[in-house]
Amino acid sequence: MCEANAYLLENDGKPEETLLMEAVDRVEPDEDGILLVSIFGEQKFIKGHIHSLSLVDHKIYIKQSSSEI
Amino acid sequence: MCEANAYLLENDGKPEETLLMEAVDRVEPDEDGILLVSIFGEQKFIKGHIHSLSLVDHKIYIKQSSSEI
Repeated sequence: MCEANAYLLENDGKPEETLLMEAVDRVEPDEDGILLVSIFGEQKFIKGHIHSLSLVDHKIYIKQSSSEI
Repeated sequence: MCEANAYLLENDGKPEETLLMEAVDRVEPDEDGILLVSIFGEQKFIKGHIHSLSLVDHKIYIKQSSSEI
Protein backbone atom coordinates (compact mmCIF):
# COMPACT_ATOMS: atom_id res chain seq x y z
CA MET A 1 0.00 0.00 0.00
CA CYS A 2 1.31 3.38 -0.92
CA GLU A 3 -0.65 5.72 1.23
CA ALA A 4 1.13 8.74 2.73
CA ASN A 5 1.04 10.84 5.87
CA ALA A 6 -0.22 14.42 5.67
CA TYR A 7 1.63 17.13 7.58
CA LEU A 8 0.72 20.74 8.23
CA LEU A 9 3.55 23.23 7.75
CA GLU A 10 3.39 26.24 10.02
CA ASN A 11 2.80 29.52 8.23
CA ASP A 12 5.27 31.61 10.18
CA GLY A 13 8.37 30.04 8.71
CA LYS A 14 9.14 27.72 11.59
CA PRO A 15 10.47 24.41 10.29
CA GLU A 16 7.82 22.47 12.16
CA GLU A 17 5.47 19.89 10.77
CA THR A 18 2.35 18.67 12.52
CA LEU A 19 0.89 15.30 11.60
CA LEU A 20 -2.65 15.82 10.28
CA MET A 21 -3.56 12.33 9.15
CA GLU A 22 -1.88 8.99 8.64
CA ALA A 23 -2.50 6.54 5.80
CA VAL A 24 -3.96 9.10 3.40
CA ASP A 25 -5.28 7.62 0.18
CA ARG A 26 -7.21 10.39 -1.57
CA VAL A 27 -6.48 14.11 -1.59
CA GLU A 28 -9.01 16.44 -3.20
CA PRO A 29 -8.22 20.15 -3.23
CA ASP A 30 -10.99 22.68 -3.79
CA GLU A 31 -11.21 26.45 -3.52
CA ASP A 32 -11.53 26.53 0.25
CA GLY A 33 -9.15 23.79 1.26
CA ILE A 34 -8.22 20.17 0.93
CA LEU A 35 -10.21 17.04 1.65
CA LEU A 36 -8.09 14.18 2.97
CA VAL A 37 -9.47 10.63 2.96
CA SER A 38 -7.56 7.83 4.66
CA ILE A 39 -7.48 4.18 3.60
CA PHE A 40 -9.85 3.57 6.53
CA GLY A 41 -12.41 6.03 5.14
CA GLU A 42 -11.68 8.71 7.72
CA GLN A 43 -12.16 12.21 6.29
CA LYS A 44 -10.65 15.53 7.27
CA PHE A 45 -11.04 18.94 5.65
CA ILE A 46 -8.10 21.29 5.99
CA LYS A 47 -8.16 25.01 5.15
CA GLY A 48 -4.98 25.25 3.19
CA HIS A 49 -3.24 24.21 0.01
CA ILE A 50 -0.75 21.56 -1.03
CA HIS A 51 2.76 22.83 -0.45
CA SER A 52 4.50 19.78 -1.87
CA LEU A 53 4.47 16.01 -2.08
CA SER A 54 7.35 13.65 -1.47
CA LEU A 55 5.86 10.32 -2.43
CA VAL A 56 8.91 8.12 -1.95
CA ASP A 57 9.02 9.45 1.63
CA HIS A 58 5.22 9.00 1.94
CA LYS A 59 4.75 12.66 2.81
CA ILE A 60 2.15 15.25 1.87
CA TYR A 61 2.93 18.78 3.03
CA ILE A 62 0.02 21.15 3.48
CA LYS A 63 0.34 24.85 4.16
CA GLN A 64 -2.36 26.79 5.98
CA SER A 65 -4.23 29.40 3.96
CA SER A 66 -2.48 32.73 4.41
CA SER A 67 -5.87 34.45 4.23
CA GLU A 68 -6.50 33.20 7.74
CA ILE A 69 -3.84 35.42 9.32
CA MET B 1 8.93 2.47 -3.80
CA CYS B 2 5.75 4.46 -3.69
CA GLU B 3 6.08 6.83 -6.58
CA ALA B 4 2.99 7.60 -8.67
CA ASN B 5 2.09 8.37 -12.26
CA ALA B 6 0.91 11.86 -13.18
CA TYR B 7 -2.00 12.24 -15.58
CA LEU B 8 -3.42 15.31 -17.26
CA LEU B 9 -7.20 15.59 -17.20
CA GLU B 10 -8.67 17.33 -20.23
CA ASN B 11 -10.34 20.62 -19.47
CA ASP B 12 -13.36 20.17 -21.70
CA GLY B 13 -15.00 17.54 -19.55
CA LYS B 14 -13.93 14.54 -21.59
CA PRO B 15 -13.13 11.62 -19.32
CA GLU B 16 -9.68 11.24 -20.81
CA GLU B 17 -6.40 11.12 -18.99
CA THR B 18 -3.04 11.61 -20.64
CA LEU B 19 0.07 10.22 -18.97
CA LEU B 20 2.41 13.11 -18.19
CA MET B 21 5.14 11.36 -16.23
CA GLU B 22 5.78 7.98 -14.66
CA ALA B 23 7.49 7.30 -11.35
CA VAL B 24 6.86 10.76 -9.89
CA ASP B 25 8.49 11.33 -6.51
CA ARG B 26 8.20 15.06 -5.81
CA VAL B 27 5.35 17.39 -6.72
CA GLU B 28 5.79 21.11 -6.05
CA PRO B 29 2.92 23.41 -6.98
CA ASP B 30 3.52 27.13 -7.38
CA GLU B 31 1.47 30.03 -8.71
CA ASP B 32 2.02 29.24 -12.38
CA GLY B 33 1.89 25.47 -12.37
CA ILE B 34 3.32 22.29 -10.96
CA LEU B 35 6.85 20.96 -10.99
CA LEU B 36 7.03 17.16 -11.25
CA VAL B 37 10.27 15.35 -10.41
CA SER B 38 10.59 11.63 -11.07
CA ILE B 39 12.65 9.16 -9.05
CA PHE B 40 15.17 9.32 -11.91
CA GLY B 41 15.58 13.09 -11.50
CA GLU B 42 13.62 13.94 -14.65
CA GLN B 43 11.74 17.25 -14.29
CA LYS B 44 8.64 18.54 -15.98
CA PHE B 45 6.73 21.78 -15.40
CA ILE B 46 3.01 21.67 -16.11
CA LYS B 47 0.75 24.71 -16.33
CA GLY B 48 -2.11 23.51 -14.22
CA HIS B 49 -3.16 22.57 -10.72
CA ILE B 50 -3.62 19.36 -8.76
CA HIS B 51 -7.12 18.04 -9.32
CA SER B 52 -6.79 15.08 -6.96
CA LEU B 53 -4.50 12.33 -5.72
CA SER B 54 -5.28 8.66 -5.41
CA LEU B 55 -2.19 7.34 -3.71
CA VAL B 56 -3.23 3.72 -3.28
CA ASP B 57 -3.77 3.67 -7.08
CA HIS B 58 -0.47 5.54 -7.59
CA LYS B 59 -2.23 8.33 -9.47
CA ILE B 60 -1.82 12.09 -9.53
CA TYR B 61 -4.45 13.94 -11.55
CA ILE B 62 -3.56 17.36 -12.89
CA LYS B 63 -5.98 19.74 -14.54
CA GLN B 64 -4.85 22.33 -17.04
CA SER B 65 -5.15 25.95 -15.99
CA SER B 66 -8.50 27.28 -17.14
CA SER B 67 -6.86 30.68 -17.70
CA GLU B 68 -5.27 29.19 -20.80
CA ILE B 69 -8.58 28.82 -22.65
